[in-house]
Amino acid sequence: MALALSLGRRGQGNCWPNPAVGCVIVKDGRIVGRGWTQPGGRPHAETMALAQAGAAARGATAYVTLEPCAHHGQTPPCAEALIEAGVARVVAPLADSDPRVSGQGFAMLEAAGIEVDTGVLAAEAAADHEGFFLKTEQGRPLVTLKLASSFDGRIATATKESQWITGPEARWLVHGQRARHDAVMVGGGTARSDDPSLTVRGLGVEHQPVRVVVSRRLDLPLIGQLARTAKAVPLWLCHGADADSDRMKAWRETGATLLSCRVEAGQVDPKDVLAQLGKAGLTRVFCEGGGALAASLLAEDLVDELVGFTAGVAIGAEGLPAIGALGLERLADAPRFELVEARSVGGDVMHRWRRAV
Amino acid sequence: MALALSLGRRGQGNCWPNPAVGCVIVKDGRIVGRGWTQPGGRPHAETMALAQAGAAARGATAYVTLEPCAHHGQTPPCAEALIEAGVARVVAPLADSDPRVSGQGFAMLEAAGIEVDTGVLAAEAAADHEGFFLKTEQGRPLVTLKLASSFDGRIATATKESQWITGPEARWLVHGQRARHDAVMVGGGTARSDDPSLTVRGLGVEHQPVRVVVSRRLDLPLIGQLARTAKAVPLWLCHGADADSDRMKAWRETGATLLSCRVEAGQVDPKDVLAQLGKAGLTRVFCEGGGALAASLLAEDLVDELVGFTAGVAIGAEGLPAIGALGLERLADAPRFELVEARSVGGDVMHRWRRAV
Repeated sequence: MALALSLGRRGQGNCWPNPAVGCVIVKDGRIVGRGWTQPGGRPHAETMALAQAGAAARGATAYVTLEPCAHHGQTPPCAEALIEAGVARVVAPLADSDPRVSGQGFAMLEAAGIEVDTGVLAAEAAADHEGFFLKTEQGRPLVTLKLASSFDGRIATATKESQWITGPEARWLVHGQRARHDAVMVGGGTARSDDPSLTVRGLGVEHQPVRVVVSRRLDLPLIGQLARTAKAVPLWLCHGADADSDRMKAWRETGATLLSCRVEAGQVDPKDVLAQLGKAGLTRVFCEGGGALAASLLAEDLVDELVGFTAGVAIGAEGLPAIGALGLERLADAPRFELVEARSVGGDVMHRWRRAV
Repeated sequence: MALALSLGRRGQGNCWPNPAVGCVIVKDGRIVGRGWTQPGGRPHAETMALAQAGAAARGATAYVTLEPCAHHGQTPPCAEALIEAGVARVVAPLADSDPRVSGQGFAMLEAAGIEVDTGVLAAEAAADHEGFFLKTEQGRPLVTLKLASSFDGRIATATKESQWITGPEARWLVHGQRARHDAVMVGGGTARSDDPSLTVRGLGVEHQPVRVVVSRRLDLPLIGQLARTAKAVPLWLCHGADADSDRMKAWRETGATLLSCRVEAGQVDPKDVLAQLGKAGLTRVFCEGGGALAASLLAEDLVDELVGFTAGVAIGAEGLPAIGALGLERLADAPRFELVEARSVGGDVMHRWRRAV
């Protein structure tokens, strides 16, 4: 199952709107098939593994990291494929949370006389599938908020100079993290001041994550990296419903996809942004700031994982804060996170946190 | 020598104005004496180790973490004591930087026919004695700046609520760090808003570090932890030369020691503060903020070691910054530090940095 989970993770960032599933088929103590959800979400992991196993699947055990699907979607159900292949036993940590599948995949297998075992490495599987579960259960993707800042929590100097605060190793790690998410998201301020491309570079990936920019008024430079590459790599702009129609037209012409979002308290409502991204199929979103977007996500308790990179440089209080105003009344109301990991990366410190429960 | 260094570190924070030296005497492969500089700076490490070794010191090798002293101060010189004890060989990583000793201790030993070896673990010894060397060479103590902040570099909420951002394990570690310094220093703002006692608690230490508060106008509460304990634990107030004389008198009456410092650009000059502390004999100062004092030390390049504790809590841009305004023009001018260590401490991240060279 650990192997199946690690195979499944290969699909992360690559197979939305489908879950990144892994599958290993074992016959007489020998691995006869391995598979994971393919780019774009199809073929499914089970299909890949069964194809590899061929006739050896008969009487074998299939380890699948999520309940096999039971419904006829764009592909025939995997539960049916496992039955047809003559698999004797299916081990899966968890039931699917998709109402079209939940429990029905297991029921279909059991009705066909296949032994079904659940619960193995369920916590690990739940963590891997968290984005997919959030999408099906809450209608929003998982949000990882990454902030690379100075020792004192600043992301740029007063004159907006920000290249580079952290070192090349940290930036390289960030590209790897981008690749394991379906989308990379920033606020309009960051898009304006950094002119970022938001692509995954230097890792040889074929499938780029969607770039998402949240900008109420779409007041973003039409000459710049994002506009220039909008036809080559998906660029989704989450704007306020009240955005200027000429700007909307101009951005549509660059090739960008426009998502109209609710405006609340003068800014694009982050809950609605995530709802729109979930509806569009995203399961995992990697937000890289800036301070205003980070604050609006934190204030609404929408951050599932926090990744910090801290550099050994002091910028001082005039610098741009990594997290904007939160409007806290008391320290007890502050968003809290639990430490998962802390280590050095190049000359910087990397720290990962999970929302405190 | 590694053992001698670790013995020597036992004296850190405890034996100023003298260096924290360790000494191990080895005869025929057996340790016959161990010693370290005692509280208050006397007896010296060599005296302790020789007393323990007794007659066994004859023909032995003495490992000493610093050149033995050669001058008659309040105690007879250690070089003389080593000669009298009949030690055959002295191994010491470094020459002393005190002009009354430098090279003369070694010369005295060699003149008496004792073999002298230097250079072993010299970098480690230089790090351990850094505060003492800074005091003798530059007239100022080593400065460790500790900042315990939220994920986004804030040390309190807008309403100055700061208890507790980091957890009990981090706070416990801070008490250990205080104990290894000669003094704990804060700015007036922190003294006013936190009413700290600045003592080492929970570690059973007998010798408390000096408490230093930097406050230009001495506008500190005369009713509070510091004033109440000023007779029991040394409290030194670094004030501006222009402080109100009634306040000076009131503070002197509490038992505090007043150090008048130069005022520059409207604030107490941190260079002069450290010069005064060095003159008073301090070798290692542990500064715990707040933001204004941290910024003034950083701006003058007076921070030798930086210790950060980062908690998994977001306070937002209205919160009190860990480092005040630095007035940087360019990112290239920002004070830079090199990472020494990063690890989790309880639920927080601890990171240590050294001034970049």
